[in-house]
Amino acid sequence: MERGFTATIDIQLSYADTDMMGIVYHANYLKWFELGRTRFIEAVGYSYRDMENAGYFAPVYQVEATYKKPIRYGDQVSVETWVELNDGLKTAYAYHVRNGQGEVCAVGTTMHIIVSQETFKPVQFKKAFPEWYALYERIKKKD
Amino acid sequence: MERGFTATIDIQLSYADTDMMGIVYHANYLKWFELGRTRFIEAVGYSYRDMENAGYFAPVYQVEATYKKPIRYGDQVSVETWVELNDGLKTAYAYHVRNGQGEVCAVGTTMHIIVSQETFKPVQFKKAFPEWYALYERIKKKD
Amino acid sequence: MERGFTATIDIQLSYADTDMMGIVYHANYLKWFELGRTRFIEAVGYSYRDMENAGYFAPVYQVEATYKKPIRYGDQVSVETWVELNDGLKTAYAYHVRNGQGEVCAVGTTMHIIVSQETFKPVQFKKAFPEWYALYERIKKKD
Amino acid sequence: MERGFTATIDIQLSYADTDMMGIVYHANYLKWFELGRTRFIEAVGYSYRDMENAGYFAPVYQVEATYKKPIRYGDQVSVETWVELNDGLKTAYAYHVRNGQGEVCAVGTTMHIIVSQETFKPVQFKKAFPEWYALYERIKKKD
Repeated sequence: MERGFTATIDIQLSYADTDMMGIVYHANYLKWFELGRTRFIEAVGYSYRDMENAGYFAPVYQVEATYKKPIRYGDQVSVETWVELNDGLKTAYAYHVRNGQGEVCAVGTTMHIIVSQETFKPVQFKKAFPEWYALYERIKKKD
Repeated sequence: MERGFTATIDIQLSYADTDMMGIVYHANYLKWFELGRTRFIEAVGYSYRDMENAGYFAPVYQVEATYKKPIRYGDQVSVETWVELNDGLKTAYAYHVRNGQGEVCAVGTTMHIIVSQETFKPVQFKKAFPEWYALYERIKKKD
Repeated sequence: MERGFTATIDIQLSYADTDMMGIVYHANYLKWFELGRTRFIEAVGYSYRDMENAGYFAPVYQVEATYKKPIRYGDQVSVETWVELNDGLKTAYAYHVRNGQGEVCAVGTTMHIIVSQETFKPVQFKKAFPEWYALYERIKKKD
Repeated sequence: MERGFTATIDIQLSYADTDMMGIVYHANYLKWFELGRTRFIEAVGYSYRDMENAGYFAPVYQVEATYKKPIRYGDQVSVETWVELNDGLKTAYAYHVRNGQGEVCAVGTTMHIIVSQETFKPVQFKKAFPEWYALYERIKKKD
């Protein structure tokens, strides 16, 4: 894998995702970011579930999203994900949400830290998962 | 408290609850049932949180809902809850969802069992919480 | 297609679907029923979106679900759907939710009516969509 | 009302809001922002519903949230809302999410534009709702 590696997932859009504007409710994109992130992690050979089984969580510390074009029921939605930033403590994933015409309808980033399940205290990614961390150092988009 | 005791809660309806039909998405009523049930439990002097702290969960085993009239954003929604049935193992709560005109827009029931948090195996309500069980025996609507 | 025809969809389970019991929150199965129903309708050659474009909605009038076995994050979930009942006015879809071991973790049914988008008044399925209705008469599981 | 006017709402936290980390899932805070914003709009004498009835929507164009401290089931959550920025086209609401101890658990902002319901094309806030716009000019926190 090279710097800027991305992974893409097709999203199961449901009627439940829409609101009375007739478009997808903005908060639901964050669930799609989660699906994109999960797919990315699998694509690079790891598993969020295994991280949890090892005694850690990776909660979202910060999220940003910009909505450029509404998404409607019936649209073919996909999320492309990559690692934008990575330091010993924080990892930022970035997302492009596209419709079936390939238009970028939303962009976003989520910043994650790793915490111990017992204490919810931050743990250094590079100490808890040194190989995974090293991979992200290699494929992250920005230094 | 007498047989058939009920408790009522006003619901915070959000835009997120609606769908592109312009009405509240049917699955979201189940979250309102949860809020009604929680209020009922508080009204009779108990706490679901305390039940969890004692090492148990009370998952939904069965749910039924009938939707009679759509609910829209801006409606003043309330849920009235009571204990419909109670035996040593299962408890059924029943719900009336009303709009601001007092019309019953939906009715439902949820059947619960109590399980151990460790094993998810069923535990008898009357053994785990004998006083709570005795109260429900007194106030349940149907024998 | 024969009587009892079924269609199956693999579900994208997300972390968002879980609750603090560590299992999928019960209301979220209803969203999976929706995905199962949508796949079924596609599999038999129709489209819910086209029904809406023709000026109708098919809201859920009644729902029942029984939860037999918890579903956890990481499980490979699928929903199998068929038409259980059909008369001129109401259609009932039935669902089996399975985990990766093929175990039926939940069963459910949803009863739908068709309404006019303008008035939300019921419309007869067999009048609004006579061919679709005829197909359901042929493949429905129960008379 | 003075510059920096805020309005506060107590949130109905439900079990459905939690995830298997045992805390509130991050996307659900955005629904709370919506509740905070709605309360703010009511507190200053307007109504989002009336805006829609006048033929407009006010979709979220951008959202940011930072999660400082987990929120758990049983916490007494409130959201304080104010207008952070306002120009003729965009309005930014800001939010403080607090627990029962008054600790700020999350902060966020949402940026909104106004669009025509028919076309989803942007409309100038100051043209569509000149009085409402003038009020926001007076009470917005930052110039």
